[in-house]
Formats: sequence, C-alpha cells, structure tokens
Amino acid sequence: MNKLLIVGTVAFDAIETPFGKTDKILGGAATYIGLSASFFNLQSAIVSVVGDDFPQEYLDLLTDRNIDISGLEVVKGGKTFFWSGRYHNDLNSRDTLDTQLNVLADFQPKVPENYKNSDVVMLGNLHPLVQSGVLDQMTTKPKLVVLDTMNFWMDCALPELLEVIKRVDVITINDEEARQLSGEYSLVKAAAKIQEMGPKYVVIKKGEHGALLFNKGNVFFAPALPLEEVFDPTGAGDTFAGGFAGFITQSENVSFENMKNAIIYGSNLASFCVEKFGTERMVSLEKDEVVSRLKQFKSLTQFDIEL
Amino acid sequence: MNKLLIVGTVAFDAIETPFGKTDKILGGAATYIGLSASFFNLQSAIVSVVGDDFPQEYLDLLTDRNIDISGLEVVKGGKTFFWSGRYHNDLNSRDTLDTQLNVLADFQPKVPENYKNSDVVMLGNLHPLVQSGVLDQMTTKPKLVVLDTMNFWMDCALPELLEVIKRVDVITINDEEARQLSGEYSLVKAAAKIQEMGPKYVVIKKGEHGALLFNKGNVFFAPALPLEEVFDPTGAGDTFAGGFAGFITQSENVSFENMKNAIIYGSNLASFCVEKFGTERMVSLEKDEVVSRLKQFKSLTQFDIEL
Repeated sequence: MNKLLIVGTVAFDAIETPFGKTDKILGGAATYIGLSASFFNLQSAIVSVVGDDFPQEYLDLLTDRNIDISGLEVVKGGKTFFWSGRYHNDLNSRDTLDTQLNVLADFQPKVPENYKNSDVVMLGNLHPLVQSGVLDQMTTKPKLVVLDTMNFWMDCALPELLEVIKRVDVITINDEEARQLSGEYSLVKAAAKIQEMGPKYVVIKKGEHGALLFNKGNVFFAPALPLEEVFDPTGAGDTFAGGFAGFITQSENVSFENMKNAIIYGSNLASFCVEKFGTERMVSLEKDEVVSRLKQFKSLTQFDIEL
Repeated sequence: MNKLLIVGTVAFDAIETPFGKTDKILGGAATYIGLSASFFNLQSAIVSVVGDDFPQEYLDLLTDRNIDISGLEVVKGGKTFFWSGRYHNDLNSRDTLDTQLNVLADFQPKVPENYKNSDVVMLGNLHPLVQSGVLDQMTTKPKLVVLDTMNFWMDCALPELLEVIKRVDVITINDEEARQLSGEYSLVKAAAKIQEMGPKYVVIKKGEHGALLFNKGNVFFAPALPLEEVFDPTGAGDTFAGGFAGFITQSENVSFENMKNAIIYGSNLASFCVEKFGTERMVSLEKDEVVSRLKQFKSLTQFDIEL
C-alpha cells in the first residue's frame, strides 16, 4: 500500500452556526484530512502536536481509521490548540472568536522513520516553517507534494510561505486567498501567477461554488453538490484536500486527467462533511455512501453533446 | 424548421463597467435572446416594441440573423425603452442609474399569425401581463414555454407574475431571485418550492458560478467558463436563455437529458457575450467558435471515474 504523510493541526474547535453551537469538539486540519483520506486504500500517518488535555477517545478515533499517530506528539502539561468561530447566516463567511496556539507555538515536527519515504505528502494548514520542516525530513522525493494554506500566513509569514510554495507540486487555497496571494482578481490570472511561484497545479476552492484545477492552459471544474442544507462548513476545505490527496495516493497517478477524478473525490467527501457539526458526519460515513454520491456527481455534471 | 417565438425588451442600454462606459447602444432581453438563438437551425420571431428613434441599422442587425421582426412594433413619435446601469468592481452586482419605460409603458404584444403555432416560446424579461398576453394568442400548445423574469416584477407585480409562472414549463431566474420568489435560502429548497408554483423545470442562474437545472429529484449543473477577464455581464442571462431555448427548439427534445445539453449551450453562448460591451461579441461570433468552446466545456467538466 502507498503511503500518505499528513501534516496539520489537531485541535479543539468551538463552532457557532445559525443551527446551533458546540462546546470544544475534535477539529484541526490534519484530523479532517486524515478522516477523509481513510476512505482510500492506503497507509497514512499524521504529524502534529496536542496537549495532554487531548482525550484518549479522539486518539482512538484516529487509530480506528488506521491512521498512524506515532508522529502525533503529546506534550505533557501542554494544552491543545483551540479555535473558536461563528459563521454568518449565509455560512459563506465567519468570524474567528478565539485562537489559542498553545502547544503549536513551538512545535518541531518529527516525521516517523517509516514515513520518510511517503509517496504523497499533504501539507495541511500550519506555519509554513513547519511545512518546510517536514519536507526537509523526507529521505526520498515524494511523487506528489500538496500544500494547503490560508490568508493568515500570507499576512504574517509571507516570505516563509513563498519559500515552501516553491517546493510543492499542488497548492489548494480558496478564491479570496488566491486573489490575495497573486494580486489578481480574475481566478484564471491568479492561477497563472501562482503557477509561476512553483506549484505546477493550482486548486482554487470556492466553497459552495465548487473547485477549479489549473495546470498550464488546462482547467477542470468540480461543483459542490447542491444540498438542502449546509449545517457546518468547518473542515470542508481540509476534507476536500484529504480526498484529493487520498485518491492520488491510492491511484499512484499524478496526471492531470487523474487529478480531475481526485478533485471529484474531494468534492464528494466535502459534501458529507458539511452535513453535521465538526467531524461527526465523517466519522459515521460509510464507503457505500461515498460510491452512491459519486453517481450523483456524475449525473450532476456529465452530458452528452456530440461534436 | 421549428419555430421559436421570443418576447422581451428591445432597448437602448448605457453601460458603465470598470473597463469603460458606452453611450446608448443596442440592448434588451429579446435582442440578446434572438442573437443567441440565431446560432441554431430554426426560425425565430421577436415580439416587442421600439420608438421611431430606433436606428434602421439595429433592425437590420436582427434581420441579418434571420430574425422575423414583423412582431416588433415601431411606435411613431415614440421613444425606445432605455436602461442605464453601472457595474461594481467585482462585476457581480450593479446599480441601475436610469430606467425610461417610454413605448413599453402601454405595449400590447401582437404575435405574428405564422408564429401562433410556435414550437417553443421564450418569454424574456417583461411585464408578466405582456408575457401572459403572448401565451393567450397561441393557437396551438407549444412543446415548451420558457419564462425569464427578475426581482423587479416580484416587487411590483407579484400576483400577475405568479399567474404567468403557473402556465410555463421552465423558469430561468438568478439565485437571489429564486430566494426572493420562494422565501428559501437553500437553492435546492427554493427550486422545489418554485416547482410547486407550476414550472416542472427550474433553472437557477448564478452568473460566474454557473447554472443549475432542477426537475423533481434531478439536478444538473453547468459551470461558467473561467475567463481571464469578464468585460461586461450585460445580457449574459438573456444570452443563456436564448441558447437554452434555441437548442431545445432545434432539437425538438424536451427531456431532462436534453435540457442538460441546452444548459451547456446556454452557458457556452453566455461566455462569449461577456467578452465585450453589449451585443458586440455576439454580433461578431462565428459558429466554429461556438463548437470550439463546447470542447472546452467538455474538458472543463467531464471526468472518468469507474463505478
């Protein structure tokens, strides 16, 4: 089985949406990526850090999905990273209410020995120096390195971010972040500029408006599945990235044509994530539900015009 | 050849975008619908009204496209409907600067005798009583009646609008209008409610975010083509509707599967419309450009996951 190395936060989230609010629940980029990638035939490991306030049941939840957590450091006496946010009524935007870095503040990532030759590396949202630090530890060149990031790092660690962006094959960011990073309003122009920064493939996530994949003159689009109700968008972007990276890892094919399929798998898994609070839906999700929804994606997008 | 009857404004527009501004130029829903539908193998006629200030060259432009204008009334001493608007920087929203109804104020539509048995009727944006008045004159039941409307009529002629909506097969409106008409934020729920009002098919236009087609439990999505630059969105929705109705008229097939293709043709034609001011791009457009862009739509959306 191919190996996927996942880097990112493992965290507590407290979420408010128009539909209700949660206490501290399981969250974090690496958590969502790991759960999403677990629907594919692969070996995966998470590199991250938590405090000893992190409950054993959450650790079990990850290992139950066959996610290797030997690279998930538990800091004695430390507190787990905490994020709290409130979504606006349209669920397309949110305010951050609280961020407590805690053990993340001076985290030094350690890649497990047997994952230093991973086939695919998924650098989830974290300080760009941590992302670079993971790449530095790889003993063989991965077939594909995917990076996810956010505007926060563009605001406060841009030089470090640009350095790590140079080293990756695929970048996944949302539309506003693509505009901020490139200085271009048109997403077509933004994607072209970002490709000049290093990544051959640029994935722009537009939330309920789907996702675009750019590579040179080629572009592919995957819609979000139209849902009766979006309950909680938290983690949708990470779940998308995890589905993308997971499918690529399983299929061992890094062609543009295969990335189209990976984008569809990412959109598929993200469409489940938003149906309940936090990781709840991803934890209850079954493989046959994923297959059944892929059929919906096909009928949603496929047409038959003869040319 | 099958017949398409088009109702809607024929107008002067003055447009401001971040890229420049125009004097009074050719505009109007029926104009864009007619130009767009002219790319299909069909006979079409426009029912509308202008003043005698409307230049012969604009009339010639329509007849050059084989559009029958015997139902386009020219009111002696009357002034043509005028609309002026300014787009915001993102081109997704606009302010109306001026609206002069002029000859539209007491327009009584007259359907040409040989179009009273049209196969498809495209009721473009106009007062709902004018739209009803056209349906009243049909001597045979059309295979498909498509209605486009806007929030203006929901605000000031809702009862009349609901009456004509009952009588149509397909309604095309934008996302905000679908929310206003249904009182539902979720577009899936909005489409279900609107289907209860009469139309079996609901098309929700989301501008740069594509278009959705709903029918019972089925849904299809066509993206907008990602463009380097959108120059002027005026008429894009009407061009979309014209492509949709034109393709249905040509193909004589009102199945959901064929409407998927019609939505793609509509998106295709609309993607040209926005490339220049007003009708300029639609007038210069050649059929082989349309075919070539259909190939782009295929590679943009088609994927190959085996299930």
